[in-house]
Amino acid sequence: MPNEFEIIDELRRAVGAAPPGVEVGIGDDTAVLAPSVSDGRTLVTVDLIAEGSHFTIPPATARQIGHKALGVNLSDIAAMAGRPTCAFLAVELPRSRGADFARELFAGVQDLARQFDVTLAGGDTNIWDGPLIVSITLMGEITGGRPVLRSGARPGDWLFVTGSLGGSLASGRHLAVRPRILEAQKLHATVDLHALIDLSDGLSRDLRHITVEQGLGACLAAERIPIHPDVPADLPHDVRLQRALDDGEDFELLFAVSPEDGQRLLDSPPIETPLHWIGTVLPDADRCQLDFANGRRVSLEAGGFEHQF
Amino acid sequence: MPNEFEIIDELRRAVGAAPPGVEVGIGDDTAVLAPSVSDGRTLVTVDLIAEGSHFTIPPATARQIGHKALGVNLSDIAAMAGRPTCAFLAVELPRSRGADFARELFAGVQDLARQFDVTLAGGDTNIWDGPLIVSITLMGEITGGRPVLRSGARPGDWLFVTGSLGGSLASGRHLAVRPRILEAQKLHATVDLHALIDLSDGLSRDLRHITVEQGLGACLAAERIPIHPDVPADLPHDVRLQRALDDGEDFELLFAVSPEDGQRLLDSPPIETPLHWIGTVLPDADRCQLDFANGRRVSLEAGGFEHQF
Repeated sequence: MPNEFEIIDELRRAVGAAPPGVEVGIGDDTAVLAPSVSDGRTLVTVDLIAEGSHFTIPPATARQIGHKALGVNLSDIAAMAGRPTCAFLAVELPRSRGADFARELFAGVQDLARQFDVTLAGGDTNIWDGPLIVSITLMGEITGGRPVLRSGARPGDWLFVTGSLGGSLASGRHLAVRPRILEAQKLHATVDLHALIDLSDGLSRDLRHITVEQGLGACLAAERIPIHPDVPADLPHDVRLQRALDDGEDFELLFAVSPEDGQRLLDSPPIETPLHWIGTVLPDADRCQLDFANGRRVSLEAGGFEHQF
Repeated sequence: MPNEFEIIDELRRAVGAAPPGVEVGIGDDTAVLAPSVSDGRTLVTVDLIAEGSHFTIPPATARQIGHKALGVNLSDIAAMAGRPTCAFLAVELPRSRGADFARELFAGVQDLARQFDVTLAGGDTNIWDGPLIVSITLMGEITGGRPVLRSGARPGDWLFVTGSLGGSLASGRHLAVRPRILEAQKLHATVDLHALIDLSDGLSRDLRHITVEQGLGACLAAERIPIHPDVPADLPHDVRLQRALDDGEDFELLFAVSPEDGQRLLDSPPIETPLHWIGTVLPDADRCQLDFANGRRVSLEAGGFEHQF
């Protein structure tokens, strides 16, 4: 059976020698990134996912877990409208699952990496008797001259989301994350994105990062919230709406733009992924509300998933 | 009890706002590193340590684990003769250990970070019912115009180690890693380091990275191997020597220099940490040997710790 060093060798061969932008890749004490990759401002994000917490095996396969581990990081780079460059993979591989499981996991990472021109530049491979742990650090470059932050929304801004929301964890869709890298870059190139975030903890919670935490409020239009088909159609409508607001792991984009730019996006959307106007930024951080078509108005609570001690 | 978001807030406050070189730190989707940090070639390393595999609690305390998690990464930057700049911390915190445990862990990371001017620039904080997992990604800059790689030793080069070896895991010394960052920089500034590595898997194994894997051999002088006082003095000498060769987690430097530079280092050592000449690089990769003062010669096997499926 292969040991850690042999597994690392296999991975190194699979990645190939001297990928672009990486002067020293897998196999030395640290990676050395060429100036071409690291010039200017560098984006860095890290996400760790763990068996029993972020996924279970089954239903998740090794390949799906590899995909998800990189996908959630790509989603964070998308949330800055950045361009991903290289990734570092640290894993604890469960001994009982064997080497083919590890190969499938790496293949899942690499397939998605290739799709987004990401170079696997280093990592740390361990084998143990515990559950599977996958931690990826992803670096990137800014596009359009600046990263788009969580701060920057203004009262009166229009709020948009890409795609549709809810049911991701229950359906297993979270394993097949489709990071909105290209969508974010195109939006950034087309309009002045005031604030941008990716939806991982649920719209109702993540919305607060670009509003309440910035001293702003928001008013969402209930009938405009795009509910994903993964939310069972036979549930009462209010329950379905709540699922779209709270479920999390959608990995869609939420952003704020001026009404003028918002109108431009509605008139001629620059991306094929559906764009939904869902509400407006308010000046008052005490007001985070959900308006229904019938005139009903409720306070919008952060209902997303919350881990605590 | 605090949840993940509150723990992250605490950490953010502890780190402070706008550390040097970091335009956007903890709190947005990714960190944004200023060009001053990421100019030129960038060093990146990641190490993941896990409860039950790299440490147990007790005897390890949360603060020691935080120290070790960053220390092993610093040791990798030292192994390139680099200067560390900023760190990213991903953790799975065991729910049962509570928030004070997490605070102690972060304090352990931060104390060492401060000591080496490392900025904590981001991370991923999770709480779960599994064991403690700590993954740190550390970035750095090169010094002296180039990183020192594992490759580059030449036949006839002299081999040196810093400090002394063995007994690290058994004594708990591995938890108090003293990364040889400044030592490596000073050596790099003083002589032409042909090859450099840090000792994590044991001298007998790590030696191969700069010799056998580069098509070279080595001849070590048994009586020159510095045995750490943590290796019990009442063991037979051969057993003590084997421990120094194989135990691992020493986090000392191993490097190759020309005989001329080697003599200079012996004549006027540029660092206070002891420097030991331990042997010579041979041209033939089939020959990795250990010579005893009495003329006995044995083949030097890679005996370090090896995890396998």
